[in-house]
Amino acid sequence: MNFIEERIVKDGIIKSGNVLKVDSFLNHQMDINLMEEIGREFKRRFSDVCVSKVMTIEASGIGIAAFVAKEFGVPLVFAKKSKSINVDGEMFVAEVESFTHKNKNQVIVSKKFLHEGEHILIIDDFLANGCALQGLISIAESAGAKVEGCGIVIEKGFQIGGRVIRNMGYRVESLAIIDAMDAEAGTIDFRAQD
Amino acid sequence: MNFIEERIVKDGIIKSGNVLKVDSFLNHQMDINLMEEIGREFKRRFSDVCVSKVMTIEASGIGIAAFVAKEFGVPLVFAKKSKSINVDGEMFVAEVESFTHKNKNQVIVSKKFLHEGEHILIIDDFLANGCALQGLISIAESAGAKVEGCGIVIEKGFQIGGRVIRNMGYRVESLAIIDAMDAEAGTIDFRAQD
Repeated sequence: MNFIEERIVKDGIIKSGNVLKVDSFLNHQMDINLMEEIGREFKRRFSDVCVSKVMTIEASGIGIAAFVAKEFGVPLVFAKKSKSINVDGEMFVAEVESFTHKNKNQVIVSKKFLHEGEHILIIDDFLANGCALQGLISIAESAGAKVEGCGIVIEKGFQIGGRVIRNMGYRVESLAIIDAMDAEAGTIDFRAQD
Repeated sequence: MNFIEERIVKDGIIKSGNVLKVDSFLNHQMDINLMEEIGREFKRRFSDVCVSKVMTIEASGIGIAAFVAKEFGVPLVFAKKSKSINVDGEMFVAEVESFTHKNKNQVIVSKKFLHEGEHILIIDDFLANGCALQGLISIAESAGAKVEGCGIVIEKGFQIGGRVIRNMGYRVESLAIIDAMDAEAGTIDFRAQD
């Protein structure tokens, strides 16, 4: 097991309905040492690509992505969720359905901060059905930027998102891929990775 | 001028209605070097107090607060905004009115992550009418934690928030305090600080 898988086993809480709570270290309370380690690990995994900007979506992706951006020495842009578009200037917009909250959000990034020819690394905490990630990819492509890859902390491998995004031709690196969870037994199966 | 004031003058955009846009470096695109410098500066300003946890509110506070937490070597907890409370376990809740979006949000923190006897440093990007900050303070106090101080990147000194919070007896350190802005002339007056 790698450091993320170990931490999930130690501190993650499996709930019924394939819910994994990692709010004690990742997306409510944040273990900053872990964030730094995640930053270093994505730098290592994407050391072969040119990255000019890291991109994520608010809110829980921001902390993680900030430490990845630090490792690459590049700026971070985070997409904002907006129900009512009330923003001046021009925006790239994508519509994203939330699995957790069962609603639709518009996801927006100012055109000032994404440009043609940029090399984008997208970072997020979870990949499940892939809607958020597809929205971010769509926004980056609208800008004429190149998505060099997607770095995910926890992928729910039993949901469709990872397969969809990889089938679209994008490189997805997930630090932990969960193939199955059993709330009653309290067990998690991780997919073997190189 | 300190480094934040200089950056505001260089890259901030003053809009009518006392709106200051700093989305090119602080709250949409983030300059990570600046975040690190902000982390170090708050560590310097609050070097005389014991801090066991940094607290902020999603979304744009997270990146800043993460680098402050890194400097102090403590975890970060970020409060979540929620219209419909749909969370398991017990939560501390405060009601917060948003000046920008003209709506009310419930701000929540899990009782698992705030405890009696903790020493809290609250961090946020903006202080204007002070509602978000009051919500965070109220949540920390509900937990029986002690608010050791509030670190703000940009305080709109012509709005009431800073005065209210300081009058409540809390220490507020703002890296830049704006006393007046003129959108037409493009000028900003910063309050002199020691």
